[in-house]
Amino acid sequence: MEHTSRSFEIELRELKEKLLLMGGKIEEIIRDAMNSLTERDSGLAQEVINRDHEINRMELQIDDLCFRILALRQPTASDLRFITVCLKVVTDLERVGDMGVNIAERALELNLEAPLKPYVDLPRMSEGAQRMLKSSLDAFVNEDVELAQEVLNSDDGIDDLNRRIFQELVEFMEKDPTNVRRAILLSFISRYLERIADHATNLAEMVIFMVQGRDVRHSLSKSL
Amino acid sequence: MEHTSRSFEIELRELKEKLLLMGGKIEEIIRDAMNSLTERDSGLAQEVINRDHEINRMELQIDDLCFRILALRQPTASDLRFITVCLKVVTDLERVGDMGVNIAERALELNLEAPLKPYVDLPRMSEGAQRMLKSSLDAFVNEDVELAQEVLNSDDGIDDLNRRIFQELVEFMEKDPTNVRRAILLSFISRYLERIADHATNLAEMVIFMVQGRDVRHSLSKSL
Repeated sequence: MEHTSRSFEIELRELKEKLLLMGGKIEEIIRDAMNSLTERDSGLAQEVINRDHEINRMELQIDDLCFRILALRQPTASDLRFITVCLKVVTDLERVGDMGVNIAERALELNLEAPLKPYVDLPRMSEGAQRMLKSSLDAFVNEDVELAQEVLNSDDGIDDLNRRIFQELVEFMEKDPTNVRRAILLSFISRYLERIADHATNLAEMVIFMVQGRDVRHSLSKSL
Repeated sequence: MEHTSRSFEIELRELKEKLLLMGGKIEEIIRDAMNSLTERDSGLAQEVINRDHEINRMELQIDDLCFRILALRQPTASDLRFITVCLKVVTDLERVGDMGVNIAERALELNLEAPLKPYVDLPRMSEGAQRMLKSSLDAFVNEDVELAQEVLNSDDGIDDLNRRIFQELVEFMEKDPTNVRRAILLSFISRYLERIADHATNLAEMVIFMVQGRDVRHSLSKSL
């Protein structure tokens, strides 16, 4: 059968490698964006913003590759599930990249003013979100449902941190109007990090679908 | 050829109808969520929040249908492009639904307090975002590239409104600390609306790919 041909295997491996490469670039973007904030490094922030094009290009290339494989190889069963999941995963990854760019943009604005307070909770939240992202990508590559489930379980912790940070920033704003602008910018960053965690959650859910989807899909196709 | 068979045509029509139905439900959710804010109707807000499950169920059904068609019909060319676009569109639509739920959640909180000011700019922004969403769905159904291009052009207007609203809310907060919490909740709603416009923009871009993608894909598949 064509779908077990050697060139098909090579294309699937190429697809997986491209996604992992994109995932790695995006992890770098988030880490550098947060460093541009905590180390007040506006040059780094600008550099992160410039990397957006590269991510968009990677997204298009991966979409193209998925489309070509679907058109030319007409994959079935688990290969088809893998490729439809890739089409969704790449959208989530691209939007995580956007969040990194947004963080860098807010860092540029914040670096122009005195720091509101030492950044403690935001880096902690960022570490959590980055860990979720990394785990969901690892779970994807290794088809590791258990790890994907761990990602789903850790989302609540991020939401709690986001709420706590927000509460504290509201108090800063209520205490002194000159804090308002900086506190709002920081609350945005907190929400970007929360959305990164949400995207990691989406990825983890897709991994579970990809690995365990067989039975579900089977019962559905029987109903055709 | 199988892909021109009658049952395949019926499945494609079913897919399009399901997407349109979902799009219609989501337009309702956004409209009702905004009404729950402007008319201070917390019962309606709660009702919007309850509709989230229905949207999630629709998303799963549409994903399933796409997957079944890919697996059983192995479509090519424009049919394949239509289905891969559907897989992406449904994700954007589901997230627009989430934005509606978020608006309703913030409305519930805002309705507990006195209004900060008459809601004028937010409804205007919401009308713009809803118009973009409707146009992008119409462009999708009618494969109307010109309409999709109009959607892309109107995104800047929404971004401008978002910035203006945000600027005004910052001034409210700086003027009086008791405004802070309500102003922040309103700034969230402004950003949810901006994200709805972004999703509409994604949809419009996909319509353009779907209709004009033939040449691009052709030149790529030649390089295989």
